[in-house]
Amino acid sequence: MAGDTFGRLFTVTTFGESHGPAMGCVVDGCPPGLELAESDIQHDLDRRRPGRSRHVTQRKEPDQVTILSGVFEGLTTGTAIGLLVQNVDQRSRDYSKIKDKFRPGHSDYTYQHKYGIRDYRGGGRASARETVMRVAAGAIARKYLAERAGIRINGYLAELGPFELKPLDLDAVNDNPFFCPEPARLNALDGFMDRLRRAGDSIGARINVIASNVPIGLGEPVFDKLEADLAHALMSINAVKGVEFGDGFRCIQQRGSEHRDEITPDGFEKNSSGGTLGGISSGQDILASIALKPTSSIQVPGRTVDTEGKAAEIVTTGRHDPCVGLRATPIAEAMVALTLMDHYLRDRAQNADVREAEPAMTESV
Amino acid sequence: MAGDTFGRLFTVTTFGESHGPAMGCVVDGCPPGLELAESDIQHDLDRRRPGRSRHVTQRKEPDQVTILSGVFEGLTTGTAIGLLVQNVDQRSRDYSKIKDKFRPGHSDYTYQHKYGIRDYRGGGRASARETVMRVAAGAIARKYLAERAGIRINGYLAELGPFELKPLDLDAVNDNPFFCPEPARLNALDGFMDRLRRAGDSIGARINVIASNVPIGLGEPVFDKLEADLAHALMSINAVKGVEFGDGFRCIQQRGSEHRDEITPDGFEKNSSGGTLGGISSGQDILASIALKPTSSIQVPGRTVDTEGKAAEIVTTGRHDPCVGLRATPIAEAMVALTLMDHYLRDRAQNADVREAEPAMTESV
Amino acid sequence: MAGDTFGRLFTVTTFGESHGPAMGCVVDGCPPGLELAESDIQHDLDRRRPGRSRHVTQRKEPDQVTILSGVFEGLTTGTAIGLLVQNVDQRSRDYSKIKDKFRPGHSDYTYQHKYGIRDYRGGGRASARETVMRVAAGAIARKYLAERAGIRINGYLAELGPFELKPLDLDAVNDNPFFCPEPARLNALDGFMDRLRRAGDSIGARINVIASNVPIGLGEPVFDKLEADLAHALMSINAVKGVEFGDGFRCIQQRGSEHRDEITPDGFEKNSSGGTLGGISSGQDILASIALKPTSSIQVPGRTVDTEGKAAEIVTTGRHDPCVGLRATPIAEAMVALTLMDHYLRDRAQNADVREAEPAMTESV
Amino acid sequence: MAGDTFGRLFTVTTFGESHGPAMGCVVDGCPPGLELAESDIQHDLDRRRPGRSRHVTQRKEPDQVTILSGVFEGLTTGTAIGLLVQNVDQRSRDYSKIKDKFRPGHSDYTYQHKYGIRDYRGGGRASARETVMRVAAGAIARKYLAERAGIRINGYLAELGPFELKPLDLDAVNDNPFFCPEPARLNALDGFMDRLRRAGDSIGARINVIASNVPIGLGEPVFDKLEADLAHALMSINAVKGVEFGDGFRCIQQRGSEHRDEITPDGFEKNSSGGTLGGISSGQDILASIALKPTSSIQVPGRTVDTEGKAAEIVTTGRHDPCVGLRATPIAEAMVALTLMDHYLRDRAQNADVREAEPAMTESV
Repeated sequence: MAGDTFGRLFTVTTFGESHGPAMGCVVDGCPPGLELAESDIQHDLDRRRPGRSRHVTQRKEPDQVTILSGVFEGLTTGTAIGLLVQNVDQRSRDYSKIKDKFRPGHSDYTYQHKYGIRDYRGGGRASARETVMRVAAGAIARKYLAERAGIRINGYLAELGPFELKPLDLDAVNDNPFFCPEPARLNALDGFMDRLRRAGDSIGARINVIASNVPIGLGEPVFDKLEADLAHALMSINAVKGVEFGDGFRCIQQRGSEHRDEITPDGFEKNSSGGTLGGISSGQDILASIALKPTSSIQVPGRTVDTEGKAAEIVTTGRHDPCVGLRATPIAEAMVALTLMDHYLRDRAQNADVREAEPAMTESV
Repeated sequence: MAGDTFGRLFTVTTFGESHGPAMGCVVDGCPPGLELAESDIQHDLDRRRPGRSRHVTQRKEPDQVTILSGVFEGLTTGTAIGLLVQNVDQRSRDYSKIKDKFRPGHSDYTYQHKYGIRDYRGGGRASARETVMRVAAGAIARKYLAERAGIRINGYLAELGPFELKPLDLDAVNDNPFFCPEPARLNALDGFMDRLRRAGDSIGARINVIASNVPIGLGEPVFDKLEADLAHALMSINAVKGVEFGDGFRCIQQRGSEHRDEITPDGFEKNSSGGTLGGISSGQDILASIALKPTSSIQVPGRTVDTEGKAAEIVTTGRHDPCVGLRATPIAEAMVALTLMDHYLRDRAQNADVREAEPAMTESV
Repeated sequence: MAGDTFGRLFTVTTFGESHGPAMGCVVDGCPPGLELAESDIQHDLDRRRPGRSRHVTQRKEPDQVTILSGVFEGLTTGTAIGLLVQNVDQRSRDYSKIKDKFRPGHSDYTYQHKYGIRDYRGGGRASARETVMRVAAGAIARKYLAERAGIRINGYLAELGPFELKPLDLDAVNDNPFFCPEPARLNALDGFMDRLRRAGDSIGARINVIASNVPIGLGEPVFDKLEADLAHALMSINAVKGVEFGDGFRCIQQRGSEHRDEITPDGFEKNSSGGTLGGISSGQDILASIALKPTSSIQVPGRTVDTEGKAAEIVTTGRHDPCVGLRATPIAEAMVALTLMDHYLRDRAQNADVREAEPAMTESV
Repeated sequence: MAGDTFGRLFTVTTFGESHGPAMGCVVDGCPPGLELAESDIQHDLDRRRPGRSRHVTQRKEPDQVTILSGVFEGLTTGTAIGLLVQNVDQRSRDYSKIKDKFRPGHSDYTYQHKYGIRDYRGGGRASARETVMRVAAGAIARKYLAERAGIRINGYLAELGPFELKPLDLDAVNDNPFFCPEPARLNALDGFMDRLRRAGDSIGARINVIASNVPIGLGEPVFDKLEADLAHALMSINAVKGVEFGDGFRCIQQRGSEHRDEITPDGFEKNSSGGTLGGISSGQDILASIALKPTSSIQVPGRTVDTEGKAAEIVTTGRHDPCVGLRATPIAEAMVALTLMDHYLRDRAQNADVREAEPAMTESV
């Protein structure tokens, strides 16, 4: 259990390196009887795929998924689902420049010390390419949650460097390569990214994710609070440095009389809590927000050391995303889907009797 | 596994309600041979204990810990450590006012729907009293980490409502009931809290935690990144709504050339990353920061519904902390200690050969 | 996770040593709404209690259980259940004879080498006293399974040394201290045990456990087959050296045409499989059988070494069971109950949709 | 976590069906720096492969393994190892005879009820083909254990129907398709199997596994005793109905003075315990023994019901092993290797300090 498995009941175990032959995963614990075809997964993979615009890595990967097991005659069987995506553009090149140097801000340094060895080709296991299987597995969770519980999970780019983007048009999010919810600002974003790319630099971003129609009762009281498990899920995405829910860090300045969400017979008056109370979903929208750091693989020269500890200068060439945030929306959605799916099954395991006994109750408020 | 266990190798399983007879936990996986007495644990419990100032709950709890197992002749034996703290001031009172109403911002509503039943006395399992066993278990982790690896974990109050507090005097943190690192501002804090209490309201806060001398190599590459597991740990504390590491949400506005921590033969130039790279500790200080919401148990009347769904008004009397942040510093430190301890053992399990083979390597940079 | 937790969804975490102040456990994941009083647990503890006859250890332990949390107004709340049993007869005596010697067949030797330290008082954590919390937790599982699913779990002494005992009268099992299902042979057993005790020796035994009315569908296809998890559960009981299901080791000589249980519209024709097919319960009775070795704490002198590796002779005095099998029936039943409970919840988590969709199906055959 | 993952620290997660495109697994937690090539794994796969003699299934599978990740320049990197074996002979045929009928003794019945759906082609997930990835993953564990700790794991056929086979020549085991340790009886076995095949019937078997040079200290005291985890591992193999260690079920008739293994300065006098004391390895050989039932897929007609519950007759044609025990030796060895590997890492995580402090101690006795 070296951390390549996510979840307790609906689990995803992934493998694969940037420049190896393939990325893959095993999804275990999926309920049987779910209609599932490769196209259901492909849709989300296409949203994440590199090369959708000039602002992201130009690596050409079709990211075509194959279902190797767990589906029979179009339905999940309840047994382990094996998924595979071939790597087709793991360009053979000269790694001598980075082989013996640690790129600042990159995992080179820590992998080398932890394991005494590292696969330096394209970042190896630390490559953002690792997230492809998160999205693939997340697509299955998402489909189940939508069909059985009506849960919807939608993300968008909320900030990019100096730009704050309002969720004015969520329908437009999937129509532009920025996952931007303010179409009027696409030109400005294009210009900003073009200038950034010419400077050989990168920029940070914020992604927001909203999960709607989540039933009351998901999450556990103490260590596995819903937002604790979501924080784990989201913080495990490459480059994420902060996670908050609802009013998040704005709570610090708030008074209790201002923060609490009052309740009326028509429901909650607002959603400062971000959809959980005491670690358990309240039936309101789950509101999660993450900060992604600017990618460290930039062309601005930087100081570093080599594997012998001697001073060196480094410039990262190759194919990199100048803003990892640009492709992070489907990844963040996938991690939210996986977490909700796991807690949906966990809650059902323990509390099915409550749901059976008092079906009307979950309707109230 | 309803979420009352934390950790994979060094595990803590807790139980207990605010108004039950006792709080307790089982610490499993502790290495043998550690000198351990009740006084080692008591020290941290005393730092968290209620009643240290007029600004926190006036419940009188000595929080005296008893070691029930796992220690023999003053040394841990490697077997399960049972800890118990009696509840002595679980005042018998009239709960009729809250029994049938959901306090806004509180877990009443979600527990009732999830479980179909709730222990409404003092918040039951959702009480902040639950954190007493986190601190007790954390004290054991902390002692081991300090003695075997020299790791130090120190937290402080970084913000309280409008106050931003700088870490000017970390030695003073434990000498005041605010865990405030700017002693000059204690009077102002006292005044602010007095006014708040008179208003019957509450306030949010930020706690920072620094872990120093953490060895390179703790954390796993994909889902169990060190900061992901820390985020899980910290977000599981009652009232926490946000977690960030290093520059955290400030990354959004940063460029890669500004964010990355350059490396020289003398070490890293700065610590924007907060002590991890690619999910693995870099040898720099771990810098974690959390936002705590203002407590929902306030005396300002608020709108709610009763268990029948009818509109109602609520005023929470009883003994409550007007700022949960005031007592959160030792709790946050404990959760960081438990997470580091777990990863210390996880890393040793997988990578002991690397440490043995290349002892010099971990010295470099 | 040093192995003091059992289960995935319905988990039990235990602690306590033979001569420490108390034994305890945390039961996590129990469904809410189950009526539970200390007397429900006490009944099974009394069946396991030492001192029920002259053939078992004469240690006087009332084994009175206290529920410390997780129950409110007589119902489980869904949160962690803390249980405690005080040790009252941990007689203070002279351990100098065993302190520096390894009793053959006992864990002294392995604990000392594994941990570098051992609590030699009464066997410490390795004492059969550890099983008291298995029985306490098992009583909760058993009550839930009986009330919600009608599952019954009954064990009996099937062999004791040269005696083979047939399940002629299962109602009589709880009326005699041997858990013997052949009351006519009680006098012979009494005589055998008296002679054995006078010889200062001990004897092995076999316990059979039958679980009836188990629904079809418990267990997972690959590593967590129901009988694999039951084998883990039963083999974890002190002194157990073998586990078999249905025809067990007799299968070796059988032909397929003889072993397979044919099916007719009225059900299975026989039960050679012991209630599982492909790792999943078939609706037939689960038939488990275990072998317990003779206890190693005997008064017949034996050769050993001391902690310095020098030859020594050892005689174990003190209070010991000459046949651990005599008190093992309630313990084996408890482990079966805990395993079935865990799989009942696991199956419900994944397959609730199947049960809802095709309720009639589980009736068939 | 639907049971397709084995282990806590060295974990294996498998997927694949008999007639799907491929079998695969993810091995997580492998220590870095282990030399690993496909040929290292292939050796054990070839020992398990179908078609090695006329007595096993004639399905033609090269079982060629591909390493998809986790190995760089011939060394494990510490990250997840993905393995894949293509299915090449999943013959397309007519399943109408078994599609709507439950083969007695087979998992058809339980899968259909548990999941409401089953992949009936060749047994789907319940096929013995599932074990191919156990052997592949086990080969990695075995290599590590051999190189770093000198542990050797060897199995053999100990019984086949009426034949009891003595371990007279363990070197010969891998030279015959029976894994028989008594070469003189190969002709007799050949004749027995030929007659059995002509009768269209099948037979049970016993496999013994010996693990030598296991260090003292592997295993945990309570639920995760070494033999409990080994029992889980071995009982999870298809068709296994019994597991025993050391004297196993023979303990029932033994006296304590006869069973206990006395200790002298030269070591233990014998090995009735099978290599563990109190759940922890004693440094003696681990002696495990399993019973495998005769396969249920036979050509002798049998009574069953169809999916509508009506009486039916069934004859299983197709390619099947008349004695699953014949190919089980490498599978049982693999499961022992995986369990020992997991506990080797678990012990190192908790007790590395003991090993460092008292290196001489583990030499004693």
